[in-house]
Amino acid sequence: MIPRPIQDALQKIVGPQHLLTQKEDMLTYSYDAAVLDPVMPSAAVIPENTAQLGEIIALCHENTIPITVRGSGTNLSGGTIPQSSGIVILTGRMNNIIEINEADMYAVVEPGVVTATLAAEVEKRGLFYPPDPGSMAVSTIGGNVAENAGGLRGLKYGVTKDYVMGLRFFDSQGNYIKTGSRTVKCATGYNITGLMVGSEGTLGVLDQVILKLIPAPKARQAMVAVYDTIEQASETVAGIISARIVPATLEFLDNFTIRAVEDFSKAGLPTDAAALLLIEVDGHPAVVAEEAEQVKALCLKMGARTIDQAKDDAQRDKIWAARRAALSALAQLKPTLVLEDATVPRSKIPDMVRALQDIAKKYRIDIGTFGHAGDGNLHPTILTDRRNKEEFHRVEQAIEEIFDKALAMGGTLSGEHGTGIAKAPFLEKEAGYSSILFSRRLRAALDPKNILNPGKITGV
Amino acid sequence: MIPRPIQDALQKIVGPQHLLTQKEDMLTYSYDAAVLDPVMPSAAVIPENTAQLGEIIALCHENTIPITVRGSGTNLSGGTIPQSSGIVILTGRMNNIIEINEADMYAVVEPGVVTATLAAEVEKRGLFYPPDPGSMAVSTIGGNVAENAGGLRGLKYGVTKDYVMGLRFFDSQGNYIKTGSRTVKCATGYNITGLMVGSEGTLGVLDQVILKLIPAPKARQAMVAVYDTIEQASETVAGIISARIVPATLEFLDNFTIRAVEDFSKAGLPTDAAALLLIEVDGHPAVVAEEAEQVKALCLKMGARTIDQAKDDAQRDKIWAARRAALSALAQLKPTLVLEDATVPRSKIPDMVRALQDIAKKYRIDIGTFGHAGDGNLHPTILTDRRNKEEFHRVEQAIEEIFDKALAMGGTLSGEHGTGIAKAPFLEKEAGYSSILFSRRLRAALDPKNILNPGKITGV
Repeated sequence: MIPRPIQDALQKIVGPQHLLTQKEDMLTYSYDAAVLDPVMPSAAVIPENTAQLGEIIALCHENTIPITVRGSGTNLSGGTIPQSSGIVILTGRMNNIIEINEADMYAVVEPGVVTATLAAEVEKRGLFYPPDPGSMAVSTIGGNVAENAGGLRGLKYGVTKDYVMGLRFFDSQGNYIKTGSRTVKCATGYNITGLMVGSEGTLGVLDQVILKLIPAPKARQAMVAVYDTIEQASETVAGIISARIVPATLEFLDNFTIRAVEDFSKAGLPTDAAALLLIEVDGHPAVVAEEAEQVKALCLKMGARTIDQAKDDAQRDKIWAARRAALSALAQLKPTLVLEDATVPRSKIPDMVRALQDIAKKYRIDIGTFGHAGDGNLHPTILTDRRNKEEFHRVEQAIEEIFDKALAMGGTLSGEHGTGIAKAPFLEKEAGYSSILFSRRLRAALDPKNILNPGKITGV
Repeated sequence: MIPRPIQDALQKIVGPQHLLTQKEDMLTYSYDAAVLDPVMPSAAVIPENTAQLGEIIALCHENTIPITVRGSGTNLSGGTIPQSSGIVILTGRMNNIIEINEADMYAVVEPGVVTATLAAEVEKRGLFYPPDPGSMAVSTIGGNVAENAGGLRGLKYGVTKDYVMGLRFFDSQGNYIKTGSRTVKCATGYNITGLMVGSEGTLGVLDQVILKLIPAPKARQAMVAVYDTIEQASETVAGIISARIVPATLEFLDNFTIRAVEDFSKAGLPTDAAALLLIEVDGHPAVVAEEAEQVKALCLKMGARTIDQAKDDAQRDKIWAARRAALSALAQLKPTLVLEDATVPRSKIPDMVRALQDIAKKYRIDIGTFGHAGDGNLHPTILTDRRNKEEFHRVEQAIEEIFDKALAMGGTLSGEHGTGIAKAPFLEKEAGYSSILFSRRLRAALDPKNILNPGKITGV
């Protein structure tokens, strides 16, 4: 528990109704979407504006109180699991879209803005904010920046870091830091903006985010290719990339996932298929038509049983709704779901798919695999029950083997879910000890009291 | 001078022919393309490989010897001006292209690889490395990364930082650090890769760079639009952007620059024009044809006297050769050339062009303006003679006013030339003192002995 005088001070800053200390509230903020032990914070505060946010941070700094900032808590690596001695700052009231500049194609938003809300506002103006994490209907821009969130469109459009032009944030002492610019090019000072993206709240607390927007594509075509073998599907992914076609989206679903989604959402998916590819090309109408035909021909050549093109927006939306249901659908099947995120160079997708099948067999566990195959970013999803210690031990062994396989293929531990607590112990495998020390030095210099989301990324 | 035993140790590492200490050599490495006082280093070493590089850094760390790494010395902000007590590391022998992976579309290169060499190698394979700084014929990838170099194609394709997927570098103590990945998505650990890009050699010494490649555009069309007033040209720039057309390149040349280029290169430019726009659209042939027509119509609507499309590659190359000659051409006119880089949100280009005209008049100086108008990134180029103290004082005042105008328009001090020594004193104007302190803390933690290119960016 934090001391009474500090509670009083927090209450004075945000008002009594925006300071939460009841056990049932603390429970809500004790976990996120990673499979980790929950930790109840001491309090949660809900600032309304920059001034309140700055006062909270200065107060916490003075009194050495750990701070974990939370948007919607959708992150998958334990990045929002707080410290028991600390507070959670909720960004829900700092949810203003401050500016959408159509002429210069950027937006300035507060961290609590929901990703889908921004995307919709921007779309109304003929513009496009491409990053679309699976949780975008509830996830916040602040959370997306903190985790460098990816999404389905990463293949063609990149991830959150590719759209953050500038930031305004408080450092650990409550100083207000401005980085980046409203210009598309900026080479002034260090690229602190780049460093902050994906830093999981350990280097500062976001106040404003300047996001790059781009013109909306004029046309798009979604397709579903159905395969009788998983190899044909994964080889198609490699084939599309090597044909130098860059779809906006190129998603893979294995049979396990197809059946789970179909049970859950009755989308009409072929439950006997070994794998599906969900593909969307976008851009100029002429290019879309041409690329859609090329993709179709390639899928059939690689052995697709069928490939269907969405006939209208409703059919398209249905395809993506089915894909977005994958995680929820799989989550219904067993008490515990571990969503992995190991990522490989794209040409290694067939190898990775094979490796996942072998690992599932070896450890006698259920792995449903879906994800952003075009990025090399699959989400092998392990269904288990954490209370079954013997099985969960096998799950942990399987996860470590997935990491090892990904690294052996020149891949990375995390494509888009971050490091958090979940992957901090494995970071050395990928980056080496020197890189961890480098990161710790950096972190210690910027947060000497270690109050900003302790324990994440570097394990300290 | 560095002590004899250290010279001996350096010589032992690289061999006698790769340690330079003669005055005439030191002179060569005492300056770069910024207008600043030269500083002669104590020695220059030319390592051949990773092992030698690591040994040099460890030796310098142990003996607190400042290190400035130099590619081709083309940078424009004093980033490669050494310390008199320090050494220069030349990257010229570390110029291997280690890997070009066509399937996964990335390249791994050593820092001394010349930008144009890499671009050409990549092009042979139907791939594309877009960043094309004006100096790409001689500039190195290491220098491009250190300065976060931009170029003519930034508008559509972004700048160097958008293509750096991972790095291998030595920290100030000689530890080997691995960041990023060969995968297109990577959210593992801090984004040290992003931090290193543009850090001007102050946080580490590059050993390898992993660069993202993209499929080469299938077609392109270059055009030259001729204007009788500078306003019509600058308004066209804003018009093209607001029509949501994204050319690969959208360059502006004022009359002063046109005449200088024509004198220099006899390219056939209309010397009576108030301004030119050099425009290239690229991509799918159908889109290129359509966008070229749209651009043409827009230029004419905005008052262009003529607009000519390049009929073949030879004509296209001639256009870009003329543009690339601008800096050299202007440099012939007077003893001192100050190339500025202040950048504004793109819709402010007309305002900035007007402001530059006013500033030239107010301070009675010659400013030739050209540059990447589509990015908001103009290069007002001041022609002067540094030995004329009275005039140079007016030049300095003008530069400061250019900065103030850019910042007042929501712009930035540097679009693509970095901070170096030249802009370090002005950084506070843009970022505020807190941001500088934040940067200094970061820097001090990563280079506690302050041996990595001291004085750059944060002024320490």
